[in-house]
Amino acid sequence: MTAEILCIGTELLLGNITNGNARWIAEQLAALGVPHHRQAVVGDNRERLIAEVRAASERCRLLITTGGLGPTPDDLTTESIAAAFATPLVEHPQVWADIQARLAARGRPCAASNRRQAYLPEGAELLPNPTGTAPGMIWSPRPGFTILTFPGVPSEMRAMWQATAAPWLNDAGLADGVFASRMLHFWGVAESNLAEQMADLLEAANPTVAPYAGSGEVKLRLTARAASADLAEALLEPLEAEIRARTGELCFGLDDDSLASVVLELLRQRGQTLAVAESCTGGGLGAALAAVPGASDVFLGGVIAYANAVKQGVLGVPSELLEAHGAVSDPVAQAMAQGARRATGADWALAITGVAGPGGGTDQKPVGLVHIALAGPDRCVSEGVRFGSSRGRSWIQTLSAGEALNRLRLALL
Amino acid sequence: MTAEILCIGTELLLGNITNGNARWIAEQLAALGVPHHRQAVVGDNRERLIAEVRAASERCRLLITTGGLGPTPDDLTTESIAAAFATPLVEHPQVWADIQARLAARGRPCAASNRRQAYLPEGAELLPNPTGTAPGMIWSPRPGFTILTFPGVPSEMRAMWQATAAPWLNDAGLADGVFASRMLHFWGVAESNLAEQMADLLEAANPTVAPYAGSGEVKLRLTARAASADLAEALLEPLEAEIRARTGELCFGLDDDSLASVVLELLRQRGQTLAVAESCTGGGLGAALAAVPGASDVFLGGVIAYANAVKQGVLGVPSELLEAHGAVSDPVAQAMAQGARRATGADWALAITGVAGPGGGTDQKPVGLVHIALAGPDRCVSEGVRFGSSRGRSWIQTLSAGEALNRLRLALL
Repeated sequence: MTAEILCIGTELLLGNITNGNARWIAEQLAALGVPHHRQAVVGDNRERLIAEVRAASERCRLLITTGGLGPTPDDLTTESIAAAFATPLVEHPQVWADIQARLAARGRPCAASNRRQAYLPEGAELLPNPTGTAPGMIWSPRPGFTILTFPGVPSEMRAMWQATAAPWLNDAGLADGVFASRMLHFWGVAESNLAEQMADLLEAANPTVAPYAGSGEVKLRLTARAASADLAEALLEPLEAEIRARTGELCFGLDDDSLASVVLELLRQRGQTLAVAESCTGGGLGAALAAVPGASDVFLGGVIAYANAVKQGVLGVPSELLEAHGAVSDPVAQAMAQGARRATGADWALAITGVAGPGGGTDQKPVGLVHIALAGPDRCVSEGVRFGSSRGRSWIQTLSAGEALNRLRLALL
Repeated sequence: MTAEILCIGTELLLGNITNGNARWIAEQLAALGVPHHRQAVVGDNRERLIAEVRAASERCRLLITTGGLGPTPDDLTTESIAAAFATPLVEHPQVWADIQARLAARGRPCAASNRRQAYLPEGAELLPNPTGTAPGMIWSPRPGFTILTFPGVPSEMRAMWQATAAPWLNDAGLADGVFASRMLHFWGVAESNLAEQMADLLEAANPTVAPYAGSGEVKLRLTARAASADLAEALLEPLEAEIRARTGELCFGLDDDSLASVVLELLRQRGQTLAVAESCTGGGLGAALAAVPGASDVFLGGVIAYANAVKQGVLGVPSELLEAHGAVSDPVAQAMAQGARRATGADWALAITGVAGPGGGTDQKPVGLVHIALAGPDRCVSEGVRFGSSRGRSWIQTLSAGEALNRLRLALL
């Protein structure tokens, strides 16, 4: 009882566009609890399309296609699907009337090619397109195998899905229970180490746990299947508690949380504010905070002190400190953080100064060395961290911002 | 002589992430001139993986996989590919030593599970991963069929592609002739308008022109096929000149250029410096400048003036201006830019103040309204721009930074 997605369009094979339709449909299938094991992409090519559709009909219960429903000679989906099952196309006069009316309403001429869109394989039902001219179909060319076709335009596809396909899928009894899932976020642990801590859980069949690595962050997705949403959530509840108990402060958030959003919320609860002083990240830490909607009640701003003159002039870092220790050092990081607190009046400040590379590294201060300081109402601490040079400048900048936020998070817990 | 892409990961089937890797690889194959007719996605499932790999080996010359190379039990790519061709796995001791060294350099413990990553099918060559622990392979399990495996982490995959796979593909003679390509970058024009201006060129067979839309930026890829690289470049030369003549100042760069790198280079040639003052972008403009290696000789830093108190206190924006015009206004943007010049001593300053949303919009100052000021040695100008609210906060922030850089670029030309 599984589903497959087939996206049709040469523009996908040329890399002109990202396949956002596949992701969106995959999410919908997961939410409906329809098992989905395979996706494919082919170009606007009749033979390959026929071969894909035939092969899918041997494997799955439900095939969902996107693309190739337009009026141009490139649009081959409907006729290829009909050909795959040696079925003739028949015109649906009311669809043709509808297409003509829609084009007239937009003041567009009705080309003869538009009439092709009114043809469906004999026996197929219409899948109406409320927002465009290209309708889709719901067709079972053989028992136990159904095809749903959608246009490639995302807004049309989504409207058709929600109006007709989702209710049809619900009624068709394709769902094997209901799925619920949660994403837990971690900082300061490698994917492999986290996976080892979870080895027993990673092997479980329901609920499942799957690890994902990001930029410095590691995530675990928890997924449960049950007869109802409540029962699925009830399976996830003790699992999340168990993982949180094993990982303690390494786990920083759930679902849409980011380090920045979690830190902003912790400060919001205390009624406190935050400023930044950034050298090698050049504004990336501030941008991460400003990415969170509603950041402005906590995040005041700060200083991008890329040049030493700005560290001195705007943040008030003493020139003696810069001369004695160099810009990439704990004393300078601390002076930057204190300067940002002073300049903005914030309760807390984070400062970052490091060697992002690729140039500028020395034996003592290699590329990837970053000093991060945290100044608060009653403390100012700094520590260096080595991110290494192998993953490049952008990686060092991203990890520096994340590490700074995580230190503040731990200080606030 | 065609290629297929197989992306492996249950997170793709659950719709957790968009398949950006498939698009990126498809673009690379197109640029190299390797014909590419099919993409597939399967989950972390041994049987389905084996079936896909076997089926691909019957259809294509080259199979490129992403994902499933990590150390966790979910990561099944290497062993499934070996099993598909009944080939044993053998350990590569130097890979294991390398993994241990990399993890040690990052101060991370080396888990036993990491050792799995040092195993490849007998006869497979290593595809080195310069930025991560999971190497890939180049393996021809049977004559006329080669598999290249990459991790799913986009930055690692791309680095491996550029360092090893692209040269290998060029040498392997998979391309039909020699391809040369150039990417031209545009700002301030919609993809559809640019495509209309280029309608005749978009239809040409060799060289080809293909449009790509990014975040505010539009790109045209020019690709020529010829018997030699010199001949291919000779086809591109007049085409690039023609496109530049048609588009004038809309075209800002070539290949790896970014708006930030182009602006930094224009200032470098003049021996001038730049500072920023950012409100709604929160550091994103500075981060875009700091993303360019060697930015420090031009980019001095600036002020993140997210709160009005910082606009006043650090940038010296008069409170009367804020009261009379509001923070999102030309007078305040100009005062911010002048304040950034004054605070840093830079020759030029860019200031951004706007409503990034989703909250905070009013009828007069809706979400998406952004005022951008440019202060230079002999001028200070500001203008508002409306990016609209439909594409969200991150889109508005990214476009604001790009628009600011483009205004400085035009001022410097």
